[in-house]
Amino acid sequence: MTYIPYRDPNSIVMLAGPCAVESLEQTQEVAVMLKEQGLRWIRGGAFKPRTSRYSFQGLGEQGLAILQQVGAEQGLKTITEVIDTPHAEMVHSYVDALQIGARNMTSYSLLKKVSAITGESHKPVLFKRGMAATIDEWLMAADYVTADGNPYVMLCERGLRTFETSTRYTLDISAVPVVHQRSLFPVCVDVSHPAGQASLVPDLARAAIAAGADALMIEVHPNPKQAKSDGPQQLTCQQFVDLLASLRHLAAAMGKTII
Amino acid sequence: MTYIPYRDPNSIVMLAGPCAVESLEQTQEVAVMLKEQGLRWIRGGAFKPRTSRYSFQGLGEQGLAILQQVGAEQGLKTITEVIDTPHAEMVHSYVDALQIGARNMTSYSLLKKVSAITGESHKPVLFKRGMAATIDEWLMAADYVTADGNPYVMLCERGLRTFETSTRYTLDISAVPVVHQRSLFPVCVDVSHPAGQASLVPDLARAAIAAGADALMIEVHPNPKQAKSDGPQQLTCQQFVDLLASLRHLAAAMGKTII
Amino acid sequence: MTYIPYRDPNSIVMLAGPCAVESLEQTQEVAVMLKEQGLRWIRGGAFKPRTSRYSFQGLGEQGLAILQQVGAEQGLKTITEVIDTPHAEMVHSYVDALQIGARNMTSYSLLKKVSAITGESHKPVLFKRGMAATIDEWLMAADYVTADGNPYVMLCERGLRTFETSTRYTLDISAVPVVHQRSLFPVCVDVSHPAGQASLVPDLARAAIAAGADALMIEVHPNPKQAKSDGPQQLTCQQFVDLLASLRHLAAAMGKTII
Amino acid sequence: MTYIPYRDPNSIVMLAGPCAVESLEQTQEVAVMLKEQGLRWIRGGAFKPRTSRYSFQGLGEQGLAILQQVGAEQGLKTITEVIDTPHAEMVHSYVDALQIGARNMTSYSLLKKVSAITGESHKPVLFKRGMAATIDEWLMAADYVTADGNPYVMLCERGLRTFETSTRYTLDISAVPVVHQRSLFPVCVDVSHPAGQASLVPDLARAAIAAGADALMIEVHPNPKQAKSDGPQQLTCQQFVDLLASLRHLAAAMGKTII
Repeated sequence: MTYIPYRDPNSIVMLAGPCAVESLEQTQEVAVMLKEQGLRWIRGGAFKPRTSRYSFQGLGEQGLAILQQVGAEQGLKTITEVIDTPHAEMVHSYVDALQIGARNMTSYSLLKKVSAITGESHKPVLFKRGMAATIDEWLMAADYVTADGNPYVMLCERGLRTFETSTRYTLDISAVPVVHQRSLFPVCVDVSHPAGQASLVPDLARAAIAAGADALMIEVHPNPKQAKSDGPQQLTCQQFVDLLASLRHLAAAMGKTII
Repeated sequence: MTYIPYRDPNSIVMLAGPCAVESLEQTQEVAVMLKEQGLRWIRGGAFKPRTSRYSFQGLGEQGLAILQQVGAEQGLKTITEVIDTPHAEMVHSYVDALQIGARNMTSYSLLKKVSAITGESHKPVLFKRGMAATIDEWLMAADYVTADGNPYVMLCERGLRTFETSTRYTLDISAVPVVHQRSLFPVCVDVSHPAGQASLVPDLARAAIAAGADALMIEVHPNPKQAKSDGPQQLTCQQFVDLLASLRHLAAAMGKTII
Repeated sequence: MTYIPYRDPNSIVMLAGPCAVESLEQTQEVAVMLKEQGLRWIRGGAFKPRTSRYSFQGLGEQGLAILQQVGAEQGLKTITEVIDTPHAEMVHSYVDALQIGARNMTSYSLLKKVSAITGESHKPVLFKRGMAATIDEWLMAADYVTADGNPYVMLCERGLRTFETSTRYTLDISAVPVVHQRSLFPVCVDVSHPAGQASLVPDLARAAIAAGADALMIEVHPNPKQAKSDGPQQLTCQQFVDLLASLRHLAAAMGKTII
Repeated sequence: MTYIPYRDPNSIVMLAGPCAVESLEQTQEVAVMLKEQGLRWIRGGAFKPRTSRYSFQGLGEQGLAILQQVGAEQGLKTITEVIDTPHAEMVHSYVDALQIGARNMTSYSLLKKVSAITGESHKPVLFKRGMAATIDEWLMAADYVTADGNPYVMLCERGLRTFETSTRYTLDISAVPVVHQRSLFPVCVDVSHPAGQASLVPDLARAAIAAGADALMIEVHPNPKQAKSDGPQQLTCQQFVDLLASLRHLAAAMGKTII
């Protein structure tokens, strides 16, 4: 492995924002809240990998432009998912960090492309675990992403496909300490996707912090009931603000600050 | 459901002790430490369900007598696993609480028997989730245990059988809030079995507390390398003492005391 | 391992009958059909392990008496499930073979009891795989069953618990050749439980024969819509007769006869 | 769905060949054998998705040229995997049919690209199920492939990721009848990948035919021990010839011919 790690033992990075960028207003509303809360990043999907081709596929480049504008307005860094090699450079040009989603963990051509691009720019890459990938396979796949020397790669646990149906995916909380034992990668936990419902997000977020997560990804939407994707698992802005207070308290007990 | 719940929002019960009662000295050494730490319970297996019939099967009734003696010496309550209906009353007579293990979650005759016995005595029952049971199936199986009116039944998550091999089982941390949403049962998390190795136990224990667990089960052995079962996942007494301090700190941040 | 195998390379044993013995008439109707088809065995549950304690739990000893009577009337051998050690001898006294169900694969006390009883009687035991058991764990558990020298133990694959919901369980058809490679046990395939619906039973039954199964277990009911358990997966008598013709044809192509 | 099905109730298509095209000689040796056996297709990988980036990644376009040449020499149709959108048209230009692999089942951009290209050419597409995909998700993903009107799409079951380690993947044989019930797609079964070892391939191949498969995919290599990928699961040419005779016999009993 060629990466240089950037784990910060005293900080937890919060990557919050809407599942999908749906409009300028929607994204601005979340961004203003994030800025007020003293956070540094906003996430938002422009190209959405959807199970059904009849579902909302994202605003595409228009969504990237909105995310870029809103980030500039509020002084927030931006992260979004890249789902295909032909668009990789375009997506890369709009944002501060790239995300590779669980459904593409084994799209090795995409991994190579992202490695090549970010090997020069050194923009951070958030690399999600596939829903049926072992941790060893995930670490091996990360080798594709770090191959060209980008030191800023973070892994992201987001839940496994199991038989349990109470949750959308089974969050493998053990992945946090296991990855820390086996590598120098920082580990993010996406708590929204495994939860599948907003009411479970707070407990999972607290568990992730207690397990040692270096970052959290949480979906927030001004009006989840109107969301064009994954509405049930998105928090309202107020729910997020309340949760953040609780998380800051817990993080403080562990000697960490949420940024 | 007929039970009367006993969730205590301000306490976390620690159920620690050796995987198996192996000798009086071994059990005493752990018990003295637990008492010194201000804890109230000791666990230890006398009848062990083992994958191979050639593995150590536990000391049987002799192990129960040791556990009872050590509990009395130190003023600790005792909990052990019951694995068969014909022994249920005998096991029940030696201890303060019964545990039904994951491998017997669907041994409905055993569940009925434990329900009948503890329906009179009201001794607590710790009811573990099967490694391939959905939460709904687990709650339905709990109905067998509470059928005769014992109000002191606690559910215990101990990890799912999945494809991941880095850990012995995949701890389903989401089970804690899901059970809390769907029932009034308190929820214990056995962190030793999913970990499968001592080095992962601390992070999982912290995660369990943060997720809202009402109790923790942790295996402790004076000399894990000499343990007759599950040695790799057992903490030494010193490791446990160190971990407990960390857990008390985290629990305090959540307004809870570990007892 | 102490068993003496009895794999017969030219025969496939058919273990058909209702999920549960519900009445004399219901059991007789199936038995008459099985006898007319030239088969040798009838299966039927008297003690049913049910997910919910509010579901039909079987007729108990009355069901065993019905099964025994019907078997005697038609000259069919009988097999039923034993679910608890206290009843094991009683159940054993009524039937020609015992079945240990998937939910009890790790009820080691029950396995020891069945081993002890059948170690003397040499009545066959059908030992089902747990829904989350690896093949290695299953073979190790079989050691408990064969410990007292009963040579007539047959393993039975009945489907794994996975994320797939189109079927009730995921039939692990590979278990047939894997067990054949690793042991001398004959292998039965229960095709009704993994199917979960009657319409899938024929294709799974054909696959089991082609994979080398030594026996098949198929649930048949005179009126599946009225069945007190597992109605959707039970065949009508006519469906079974039609399927059997197809299976005999396929078996013949493999040099085997269905008995 | 827009496709026009082409299930042929009397034929089973055999898609055999090496895991990877490694050299002209290797591919020719397999092709000659396939032609002698009266088969119509040869498969071979040129772009290989590999878990580790340090593993053999395939010969790329050179491999495609070899496959094309060998196909032309022997009069065999060719099928190979396409793993990335930028190469899709190039790959498409060399072969008679495209394969989308399990690791790319949710690479929706790739699916859209293949749909667009083959919507014009009507070259067949073999669409593998992801190792953690439900059948419903797989059918929904197939909608991306058929969107542009290619009627020649075949689904391919290749095994699920489960806890069982005796086999590389757990072949979900039930997927064959379930897909037949829910759609008009023909279903192929790749028996080599779930087996993970050559010794299990024959029983799985027979099971697939008995379950109603419309096609089989089997890996064959002149010298599996020297194979650059997946050696343990590839058959020798002689093993394949022997197996084919057995399969033809079984297929005949079902009124089908292997082509």
